Amino acid sequence: MPQALLDEDLIARPGGRLEITTPALVLDLDALEANIAAMAEAAAAQGIALRPHAKTHKCIAIARRQLDQGALGLCCAKLGEAEALADGGLDSFLLTSPVTTARRIERLLDLKARCRELLVVVDDAENLRQLGAAAAARGAALDLLIDVDVGQHRTGVADAEQALALAAAIATHPNLVLVGLQGYAGHLQHVAGYDERRSASHAALDRLGAVKTALETAGHACPLVSGGGTGTHAFDHEAGLLTELQVGSYIVCDVQYDAVTLRADGVPPFRPALFVYSRVVSASHDGFVTIDAGSKTVSTDGPLPRVAFGADQGAAYAISGDEFGRLELPPGSSAPKVGDLVALQVPHCDTTINLFDHYHCLRGDALVALWPIEARGASG
Amino acid sequence: MPQALLDEDLIARPGGRLEITTPALVLDLDALEANIAAMAEAAAAQGIALRPHAKTHKCIAIARRQLDQGALGLCCAKLGEAEALADGGLDSFLLTSPVTTARRIERLLDLKARCRELLVVVDDAENLRQLGAAAAARGAALDLLIDVDVGQHRTGVADAEQALALAAAIATHPNLVLVGLQGYAGHLQHVAGYDERRSASHAALDRLGAVKTALETAGHACPLVSGGGTGTHAFDHEAGLLTELQVGSYIVCDVQYDAVTLRADGVPPFRPALFVYSRVVSASHDGFVTIDAGSKTVSTDGPLPRVAFGADQGAAYAISGDEFGRLELPPGSSAPKVGDLVALQVPHCDTTINLFDHYHCLRGDALVALWPIEARGASG
Repeated sequence: MPQALLDEDLIARPGGRLEITTPALVLDLDALEANIAAMAEAAAAQGIALRPHAKTHKCIAIARRQLDQGALGLCCAKLGEAEALADGGLDSFLLTSPVTTARRIERLLDLKARCRELLVVVDDAENLRQLGAAAAARGAALDLLIDVDVGQHRTGVADAEQALALAAAIATHPNLVLVGLQGYAGHLQHVAGYDERRSASHAALDRLGAVKTALETAGHACPLVSGGGTGTHAFDHEAGLLTELQVGSYIVCDVQYDAVTLRADGVPPFRPALFVYSRVVSASHDGFVTIDAGSKTVSTDGPLPRVAFGADQGAAYAISGDEFGRLELPPGSSAPKVGDLVALQVPHCDTTINLFDHYHCLRGDALVALWPIEARGASG
Repeated sequence: MPQALLDEDLIARPGGRLEITTPALVLDLDALEANIAAMAEAAAAQGIALRPHAKTHKCIAIARRQLDQGALGLCCAKLGEAEALADGGLDSFLLTSPVTTARRIERLLDLKARCRELLVVVDDAENLRQLGAAAAARGAALDLLIDVDVGQHRTGVADAEQALALAAAIATHPNLVLVGLQGYAGHLQHVAGYDERRSASHAALDRLGAVKTALETAGHACPLVSGGGTGTHAFDHEAGLLTELQVGSYIVCDVQYDAVTLRADGVPPFRPALFVYSRVVSASHDGFVTIDAGSKTVSTDGPLPRVAFGADQGAAYAISGDEFGRLELPPGSSAPKVGDLVALQVPHCDTTINLFDHYHCLRGDALVALWPIEARGASG
């Protein structure tokens, strides 16, 4: 990217923040590190492990910081993500989506050959048969988690009966090993109220627990139980069922999570760490200005971005097409001029990050690094 | 991207369509070429020129096909887009957004030095001053269009008075040349009804025409008047004002444009040419299956994608998170199995294309090329 290359020569210079070519994805390293430490501390206090989800950041530098703070390994949503991170030397992954089709399973086995640990979920008998046949053909062993639908109705077996059939097939296959279960309640992570989210989460974990009991009763041990997320991390441990949390968004705390009461005391445990920097490109009218960040640079699947600085309090962002945003200015506020910097807190982090090739990393006001987003677009 | 590299060995093999690693952006070359020819024919019949907008496709191979069919040059929304296309040897651009800030203006002049033609819009007096100073410092001349707001309230001068002030400043600057006007009615392109869109478009062009008259009366010639789009292309010429059309989306005809009556006779002039290929990854429940295309692979700023093939008529797509989609199956329909291919017509082409690195190009059922999307993510 031409603009990213241009920004390289600004690194470690004072005033870097002002010179960043917009639109740019800007990461506040102090806030990122504080968030990683806060989650590590919370999990340690709960006696639960962390396997953070790399689908959020897609970035080797951030993954390394999570591992340095005690994470067991990384979750990836897609095989391509794990491949991109493995290219940077990372070697422990849980693939949280089924890996289907013959060619993708070959890639899975290639990845397995260069990993210390590779876990993959399964929820389908025919997919399991393909995994077993491919592993046998390569003389490899695959470690599997049965994915359990705990209410999101996306992936996962629908009931204990389906889980038992998969476990039985795994048990009889010499190249497949059942290591546990996955149950991810993605549909509950953004329930705004703490108590409502906690009750719903316990109900979801009850479904997962019932499947675990059925498997164990049938003689299938499930030592690893993976699930949870940023929205439920404060109480995911309470049921004593999950052995690890798949938290992702906590690292940057987007607008969507800012609307969620994450802790019982109401104190936000994480700080906003990720912004889209933008600049005013047109200011011909009273009452609004146009900035250079639209739906190609902030995702539109969540709430709207929030103006973090660069315009008066109360200025509201609206998408104004693929390339532009509109800042509606409150009456009587002073209008930013063409060229002025406006920082937007990212609305939904995962999908916004996936639009960029680099993080522009700030330490205070100085641009100190450009971190590649190695797994951007690796959806296959 | 690992999956793209893997797909290279399928090119020109029969059955390529079935082997494509999903999710993938798939371009039907027959439909693309028919669409490019249909627009070229329509413009020729109207006696108007085409300067197609590359913000849609961001791809050198498609740009070349448009130029081969008589396009004057290309529009780009952002400087970074034009830089990426110039790296492939393209050399005539109209930058349809203001180019602001000192560093970006230096890049503009660098680009100018390697182009046959480079036009840029302006709507702000201070930005104009910076452009003039930078051009003078380099001994270069910049060809400018005054951008006129014709009702979208995004970029462009608000009235003839602002345009006259800019034209006067350009006229007195030895390094700046006024070549004409831009007036783009982006807010009207998707008005569904033909007659309503035509009336609104004529009203917008009346605003542009009034500015042109004011400038010419003051002695400022405006030989080039650029505007129009896919939604208004059938009648953009009628006012006799525009000299060229900035059409973009016609090349692929997304779900959004499929809902618009583009020609007076109601016959759709363009064919759907762009799809996201996806596969079923989970089928544990009755009534729906989960596919591997979510909000990281189909944009969410427009309508929902439409199922083109791979599931029964009536199957409806819904986003099911960043990585997944849900296909709701009509009662009694046969459910696709895990691994089955499902093709989605792209909902909004510009923002969906910007999520991918390559087009997988089909000729009939054979994968015949992978075209890089050189300007993907080039938003700066």
